[in-house]
Amino acid sequence: MPEVSQRGQAMPVSPFRKLLPFAEAARQQGKIVYPLNIGQPDVLTPPEMLAAVRAADIQVLGYAPGAGTDSYRRKLEAYYQRAGIPARFQDIMVTTAGSEAIHFAMLTCLNPGDEIIIAEPFYGTYTAFAIAAGVRIVPVTARIEDGFALPPLAEFEAVITERTRAVLVCNPSNPTGYVYRRDELEALLSLCQQHDLFLISDEAYREYCYDGAQATSALSLTGGERHVVMVDTISKRYSACGARVGALVTRNADVWQAAFHFGQMRVCPPVLEMLAAEAAADLPASYFDGTRAEYQARRDLTVARLRAMPGVTCPVPGGAFYVVARLPVDDAQQFGQWLLEEFTYHNQTLMLSPANGFYHTPGLGRQEVRLAYVINQTDLAAALTCLENALLVYPGRSEPVPTANVEAVSI
Amino acid sequence: MPEVSQRGQAMPVSPFRKLLPFAEAARQQGKIVYPLNIGQPDVLTPPEMLAAVRAADIQVLGYAPGAGTDSYRRKLEAYYQRAGIPARFQDIMVTTAGSEAIHFAMLTCLNPGDEIIIAEPFYGTYTAFAIAAGVRIVPVTARIEDGFALPPLAEFEAVITERTRAVLVCNPSNPTGYVYRRDELEALLSLCQQHDLFLISDEAYREYCYDGAQATSALSLTGGERHVVMVDTISKRYSACGARVGALVTRNADVWQAAFHFGQMRVCPPVLEMLAAEAAADLPASYFDGTRAEYQARRDLTVARLRAMPGVTCPVPGGAFYVVARLPVDDAQQFGQWLLEEFTYHNQTLMLSPANGFYHTPGLGRQEVRLAYVINQTDLAAALTCLENALLVYPGRSEPVPTANVEAVSI
Repeated sequence: MPEVSQRGQAMPVSPFRKLLPFAEAARQQGKIVYPLNIGQPDVLTPPEMLAAVRAADIQVLGYAPGAGTDSYRRKLEAYYQRAGIPARFQDIMVTTAGSEAIHFAMLTCLNPGDEIIIAEPFYGTYTAFAIAAGVRIVPVTARIEDGFALPPLAEFEAVITERTRAVLVCNPSNPTGYVYRRDELEALLSLCQQHDLFLISDEAYREYCYDGAQATSALSLTGGERHVVMVDTISKRYSACGARVGALVTRNADVWQAAFHFGQMRVCPPVLEMLAAEAAADLPASYFDGTRAEYQARRDLTVARLRAMPGVTCPVPGGAFYVVARLPVDDAQQFGQWLLEEFTYHNQTLMLSPANGFYHTPGLGRQEVRLAYVINQTDLAAALTCLENALLVYPGRSEPVPTANVEAVSI
Repeated sequence: MPEVSQRGQAMPVSPFRKLLPFAEAARQQGKIVYPLNIGQPDVLTPPEMLAAVRAADIQVLGYAPGAGTDSYRRKLEAYYQRAGIPARFQDIMVTTAGSEAIHFAMLTCLNPGDEIIIAEPFYGTYTAFAIAAGVRIVPVTARIEDGFALPPLAEFEAVITERTRAVLVCNPSNPTGYVYRRDELEALLSLCQQHDLFLISDEAYREYCYDGAQATSALSLTGGERHVVMVDTISKRYSACGARVGALVTRNADVWQAAFHFGQMRVCPPVLEMLAAEAAADLPASYFDGTRAEYQARRDLTVARLRAMPGVTCPVPGGAFYVVARLPVDDAQQFGQWLLEEFTYHNQTLMLSPANGFYHTPGLGRQEVRLAYVINQTDLAAALTCLENALLVYPGRSEPVPTANVEAVSI
């Protein structure tokens, strides 16, 4: 009998979906399960997006150009200009969500067997893209004690080999919420320049920085023209995760052209959803103010509640809508399963993401979890009350390494 | 400076897009250019599809399940049952168009460096997917003199090595329109069974078989449960190329599970377009009758006109909406460019696809073109008149190997 490929067998289960079967079972038992496991916000999608699709007069739903419609690319250019990002029409390739942009960036910048350096913990799905692209991830570990700041550059330099082709950053970071300072990004770019590496920058959460901070796009770094490949998506920006529209943006025309050729294999991005994306690109910058304020309030609530729980370590994330916390438990994955199988508090419980799925180095993150503060504050507070009570009675409770709570906010 | 990966540099330009810049230049000069180069039909998309999207009451456009919504998978199951294809709910994984299904099938069934056998000429984009997946395509040549029928099984056997992992067929075939007979498919499956190979079957054009013929799904072959991976799309079925919704369907649960894990990396297919696809799946089988009759009339027109042109060889395609013809020209790609740059007939010309992009073996198909009969009969007739007149005056006219016109229709 033919067998599934080794890479097929190696594909990991999404770290934020590992506990899904247990959550489904819990719900079938009538429990309320608060979903803090996945970055699926409850924020309303701007009605303009769906209105644009409704209003479209389409007789034949035909292919679009491989790099996206000209009209959408023009509007994206204007959006980037408003955001202070020097991305021109010809630098923008529309993709099927940020996922495809990451995939194309890896295929375009790295050959099979090449290495890409990523600070861990990182978005677990990068591992899946690396397997699909035959690329080896080399982690550099960011530490919760440092608020998940960029590890010292020497640690990046130490792992560069002749197979290293790229450094990948997610800024603001999923899962840590860390927002890279401009000087950190400049240092990374300088490293890339010295070693002929690409700097792939995942900026999905650009708009969601708190306390007045602003994310720095890698595209805005001086001298990054040949090195920087930015990947982007509308999923989080407009709470439109189901509209699979993203972008790969680079001023390196060779990279753009190669990515475009990869893009030809899937002909074009989803056409109806590009219409929705185009309407979103027309929204003024002020659109984000309300959503940002809401996320900041949720972050403040989450961090305050976590820090009040004995034994919990929790940096203050400066952006995105996640926090990675260390819990006083033997094993966060077992704890997560126990929350769904064994625990209830007034018939409620929560689903979280064990952080081991966000670390590449085996054994790291065993006591850490990622919480996505994507539900309304009432439910969020209820979920955190569940967590607080669960930690008091969890049979596998164990004191973690004591650590002062630290700030991860960027200036 | 960092350089684009070798695979990025190796990515081919889509064979049906090679002449696009020349077509654009011709249109800017005011010429009418009939697009016979790409399978983008002018048939109206069923209004039910767009109505379903308009009617959807969506507050938060969130992620869908990775394998597609349950409701769409149930409707697809019913559609397959109506089509006599034994595909169950749990066999169906919804993908982002047929493209992604092909990509996942390759990633799941083959390791880097493994070989996949495909009868050429084949859908040129398979080459791009193979490069992306690090897979080596091994061609077996179908001949225009045989109406592009399945080459003798001995020719497949002759190229099987220890790295061979799969055979890929497109049925009905893009670009030849050949419809594989059940006994041909059974012979292929038997070969796959003997050598532990997967049989990947691209059935995008299932509904469009002519003269009363019906396509045989590889999924319906006895004993194919572990071997067959079917890839599908709604693009051609409902003239909805811009809705990027397809499916990977297999009764091999291991393959399904691995494909599902690859699917987790892109989280889910486009949600709005799955709504459109769901409405399409509700259309009765009779929906296809009108479209099929229209395509058959176009095929008849195309074949009759081509055969009336001196020196042209043209099999009768039994399905899909393409024909591969051999023209009395020195080089079909140069001819195609000349059509756009140098030629007009009453200010009209046509764009075709040089067939060399559909052959894997260098040098083959030099005198052949693929024509897509996707435009209305009036325009199609005008395009063929252009072609007829162009062949009379093309300076690179050369008599091809004389061949009797043959039938490619399956019984």
